[in-house]
Amino acid sequence: IGDRGIAWSSADGNYKLALRGYLQADFRTFFDGSTKTKNPGSNLTDSALIRRARLTLEGQLFKWADWRVSPDFANSQVQLFDAFIDAHYIPEAALQVGKMRVPMSLERYKTATNLDFVERGYPAQIAPNRDVGAMLHGQIGYPGYKPQYSIQPVFRDWISYEFGWFNGTGDNTPVGQSDVEVDQEKDLAARVFSHPFLKSGIEPLEGLGIGVAGTWGNPINQTLNKLISVGQQTIFNYGGSGTNTSSVLANGNAYRYYPQAYWYYGPFGLLGEYLWTNHAVLATSTSGNKSTSYETSMNNRAWNLEASYVLTGERDGFFGIKPQNNFDPLAGNWGAFVLAGRWTGLTLDAHAFEPFKGANGKNATLANPLTSVSGANTFTAALNWYLNPFMKVQTDYSNTWFTGGGGTKDENRRQEQAWFTRFQIAY
Amino acid sequence: IGDRGIAWSSADGNYKLALRGYLQADFRTFFDGSTKTKNPGSNLTDSALIRRARLTLEGQLFKWADWRVSPDFANSQVQLFDAFIDAHYIPEAALQVGKMRVPMSLERYKTATNLDFVERGYPAQIAPNRDVGAMLHGQIGYPGYKPQYSIQPVFRDWISYEFGWFNGTGDNTPVGQSDVEVDQEKDLAARVFSHPFLKSGIEPLEGLGIGVAGTWGNPINQTLNKLISVGQQTIFNYGGSGTNTSSVLANGNAYRYYPQAYWYYGPFGLLGEYLWTNHAVLATSTSGNKSTSYETSMNNRAWNLEASYVLTGERDGFFGIKPQNNFDPLAGNWGAFVLAGRWTGLTLDAHAFEPFKGANGKNATLANPLTSVSGANTFTAALNWYLNPFMKVQTDYSNTWFTGGGGTKDENRRQEQAWFTRFQIAY
Amino acid sequence: IGDRGIAWSSADGNYKLALRGYLQADFRTFFDGSTKTKNPGSNLTDSALIRRARLTLEGQLFKWADWRVSPDFANSQVQLFDAFIDAHYIPEAALQVGKMRVPMSLERYKTATNLDFVERGYPAQIAPNRDVGAMLHGQIGYPGYKPQYSIQPVFRDWISYEFGWFNGTGDNTPVGQSDVEVDQEKDLAARVFSHPFLKSGIEPLEGLGIGVAGTWGNPINQTLNKLISVGQQTIFNYGGSGTNTSSVLANGNAYRYYPQAYWYYGPFGLLGEYLWTNHAVLATSTSGNKSTSYETSMNNRAWNLEASYVLTGERDGFFGIKPQNNFDPLAGNWGAFVLAGRWTGLTLDAHAFEPFKGANGKNATLANPLTSVSGANTFTAALNWYLNPFMKVQTDYSNTWFTGGGGTKDENRRQEQAWFTRFQIAY
Repeated sequence: IGDRGIAWSSADGNYKLALRGYLQADFRTFFDGSTKTKNPGSNLTDSALIRRARLTLEGQLFKWADWRVSPDFANSQVQLFDAFIDAHYIPEAALQVGKMRVPMSLERYKTATNLDFVERGYPAQIAPNRDVGAMLHGQIGYPGYKPQYSIQPVFRDWISYEFGWFNGTGDNTPVGQSDVEVDQEKDLAARVFSHPFLKSGIEPLEGLGIGVAGTWGNPINQTLNKLISVGQQTIFNYGGSGTNTSSVLANGNAYRYYPQAYWYYGPFGLLGEYLWTNHAVLATSTSGNKSTSYETSMNNRAWNLEASYVLTGERDGFFGIKPQNNFDPLAGNWGAFVLAGRWTGLTLDAHAFEPFKGANGKNATLANPLTSVSGANTFTAALNWYLNPFMKVQTDYSNTWFTGGGGTKDENRRQEQAWFTRFQIAY
Repeated sequence: IGDRGIAWSSADGNYKLALRGYLQADFRTFFDGSTKTKNPGSNLTDSALIRRARLTLEGQLFKWADWRVSPDFANSQVQLFDAFIDAHYIPEAALQVGKMRVPMSLERYKTATNLDFVERGYPAQIAPNRDVGAMLHGQIGYPGYKPQYSIQPVFRDWISYEFGWFNGTGDNTPVGQSDVEVDQEKDLAARVFSHPFLKSGIEPLEGLGIGVAGTWGNPINQTLNKLISVGQQTIFNYGGSGTNTSSVLANGNAYRYYPQAYWYYGPFGLLGEYLWTNHAVLATSTSGNKSTSYETSMNNRAWNLEASYVLTGERDGFFGIKPQNNFDPLAGNWGAFVLAGRWTGLTLDAHAFEPFKGANGKNATLANPLTSVSGANTFTAALNWYLNPFMKVQTDYSNTWFTGGGGTKDENRRQEQAWFTRFQIAY
Repeated sequence: IGDRGIAWSSADGNYKLALRGYLQADFRTFFDGSTKTKNPGSNLTDSALIRRARLTLEGQLFKWADWRVSPDFANSQVQLFDAFIDAHYIPEAALQVGKMRVPMSLERYKTATNLDFVERGYPAQIAPNRDVGAMLHGQIGYPGYKPQYSIQPVFRDWISYEFGWFNGTGDNTPVGQSDVEVDQEKDLAARVFSHPFLKSGIEPLEGLGIGVAGTWGNPINQTLNKLISVGQQTIFNYGGSGTNTSSVLANGNAYRYYPQAYWYYGPFGLLGEYLWTNHAVLATSTSGNKSTSYETSMNNRAWNLEASYVLTGERDGFFGIKPQNNFDPLAGNWGAFVLAGRWTGLTLDAHAFEPFKGANGKNATLANPLTSVSGANTFTAALNWYLNPFMKVQTDYSNTWFTGGGGTKDENRRQEQAWFTRFQIAY
């Protein structure tokens, strides 16, 4: 029993098992004045909710085979997040099979328990989350050092690479819907990440990590999911009311690129990433028995820029903070506090709103410009309170400015002012 | 490993984790003669079923923070029952956040493993079950004694209070459907409960507990769920066939009051509670493009009166029996036996069947008087066999007399004669 | 911690609990040439998937009461596989209640972790899987030996019998759909199985087991499920497009018989079983307000014939192989390898395609002969690699020849050539 939940180990270390999990109870409040308009983004519903109720079983066999099964029970539904076997007999060339994180967004690789902000930014929205497949990956140690194996999503070594072959899943596909393959085409995904100055002796730079990730695929009639704001409101939807379009599917060449970096030094942290994504789109407009189709592509972009500072002086890091003193006010201890700020943005391709000729002779579009935005910029300020290694209270305030989607022509969606608070136990 | 399932604890007691759960396999037989009529309540289907398959993970950190996650897998669906964190650094003012029991029915607070009857009575039907929110609660010790923290739903101290703020959920909302908030209005719920003679030295009265609970809310278009009998058959439904009503929703002021008490002394036990509930209702009748609406209120009542007696002499209690001797017939031990009887009743507001003018000019009602009852009285006799602290076999026979809902005008729904048997393992 | 997952036991052995589970990540490739035809069975989709993600909690109390709860989370859905209590105070007459395996197919009784082939053969398709009910079962020891209790599905003693009363469930009903009873009629199911030469001293025959199983029922309007090939493709469907039939239900007398045997001797293994099943069927054809119905019966058969040989010399067995040496190539150890071959077949009753007069005056059939096959023969060759007691990699190749169902009259469904590979961790 300890930092990594409950763990058992046989005497010879050949069998290890850990039972872990976490619970997040969130409270969401929106400040939208007393406007009783129907402008999109108004009158958002405050709520309390269980955001995640994750159970994780993981183990290690004979020191070279790790596995993990991790279902989530929030909202009284099962979502299987991780379910993989990782054979790392050779740490430089390990094989991981099953359902796992697609090597993509840096913020997605931060486990949900270690986020500095209650909700992730837009790069997680226009990238895959979990997918089923096989991944070759490895760690290369600093010259003169042995490579250190670490289970996904941890990569701490000098150079880490991941090269995966996956069923292929669309942007922001819910984890509970990416278990089943729908087309014959597969995706490739890869990342190279380096801590170039690890063990270099240049202390301020040892915590610098830079990398690049990408995916390449050729999906056939893949569902295009709605996109949501940092306040978890739907802000963009392909097809639907007002578009004169009966279906919009990803069909044809698709790729994503993802330069990314972080830098941690003492109590300071910085994280940045930028995502280009391009996918061919096939839209269909139907009227009675007639239908027209239209092919275009969507070139979307998203970015995160985050800074954090540990007020109580602990070392900041990609995998969270360990408070020096646990909460015990009678003994004068209050835990650790982290201040953080983030700018995250999203820019969607103008092709989304370019008219094409629908089956009924009228104009059709991929998305309805009156209800779908073409861009978003969100600034978030957060205070994280680590009471002890297992408990965290997070509160953040996000202000989002949207472009378009405001209900009437040329109007912007109502500014989103969201105050989110999270109570978390992670063991 | 012990009475509370499998529990692990770190050497300093700072980390505790318990893995618990229970399984209930039920067998239901209905005695409804050879009638082949279509009278509601006839030809009920006998069945075997898994009633609950609950897994509970719970822990305690640093002696002041408890948490629990408790999904149920019966019927091959996930229902998240409990998912809360309870910070009780100050036992007199603890804060519990997440998904939890709403402080209401006493019989609802009895955990499903400790029920004297296979199914709960009607007060659980017209009250909320689980909801998401935050609750301030505390224990106040008898003068001169320290307060004793105990995790929900246990309250054993001199005075216990609970004051909660919840999303708000309707009567009898299935636990798997109360995770998501649907309206902006929140509910308040509170209870005060006391064991007034605890540690008073008046031994016969030490096991007496009395309290009162209530909820107050103002729901907006909240779903009104069907009600079921003790035999788990639908006996009342808002709207639907024969009502000329397209929707019936709780809309406006709603409250519930719940005086409650129990008394345990040696092998005897008594439990009683009475529930008043009142909620404003908005019914809509639609015909083509026209619709009329009708506002009224439903003033429903339900009660439980239970008595139990431990034949084998063990102490009876709100949280079950611990047999003196475990089942081992070769050694002459048979476990403990408890006899119990219950009268539970339900009276629904006559407004349910009062006609209003529908959109098509014809009469409309909230509920169909031919298929929905206006009242029910159920008498249950039960034998509980505790083989050991972990195993229980329960068998009970319930006879229910209904008012109305008999298929034709002024006829009563067929008497329900239900024989339920449960095999239970709880660890 | 050991071969049976993580197990805890109290000092006196009265309480035992084990946390077990397994994970299977499968990769499926179909060789169907470059045909772009719409012939059924063409253009099958290759995929990676999580086939099973099973969690099992099981325990034993006071040495005579076992229980198990076993949900599966594959495909982000919960399927409750086992949920039973087994009271075996008298090992010759134990009572098991809850959801359990129906005593039927031998290959179904092989746990999914011990299969020699990635997917089971056809006998599992036309028999029940899990059902809810009660089962009397027992072990009878060889004269002079005590009976050895073993939890389902293990039966290792001289004679084992099972006699169960179940809700009743149809052929191949998904496990997640057999929790709820749908009709008043119950099923009986029984099996007698013997290892006649166990402890007889005739060593080559000690591993011989023979038995017979059967079910008897009288379902009322029970759903008839589709049947799938070894390649997990739908090959037979009652009703639907092209049948002029609105519903096909099992209605009336239904039985199944199942002679079965296996023989293990040293590294060799053989397994065979043959299944006769007969059920009355009620088909309905509807046209506007008119409907005609048609009663017939389906007499279906299926069989398995399997042989296996452990290349590395370990003892073969019904419950898998334990490798002598665990995978550790640097030490020259590679684990155990098992070669296996199987012929499995299915023959469906010709009544499925016999026309009857539909409600519109045109012919109707139970199933569409252009898309549903009337028979299948599958030959599978498999290589199983046991890296250690917990890890297995399986790869097999199945070639299936179908009769009928080829899209046009008298044509056969396209040959199915399926290459399946599975990575498995079982603890």
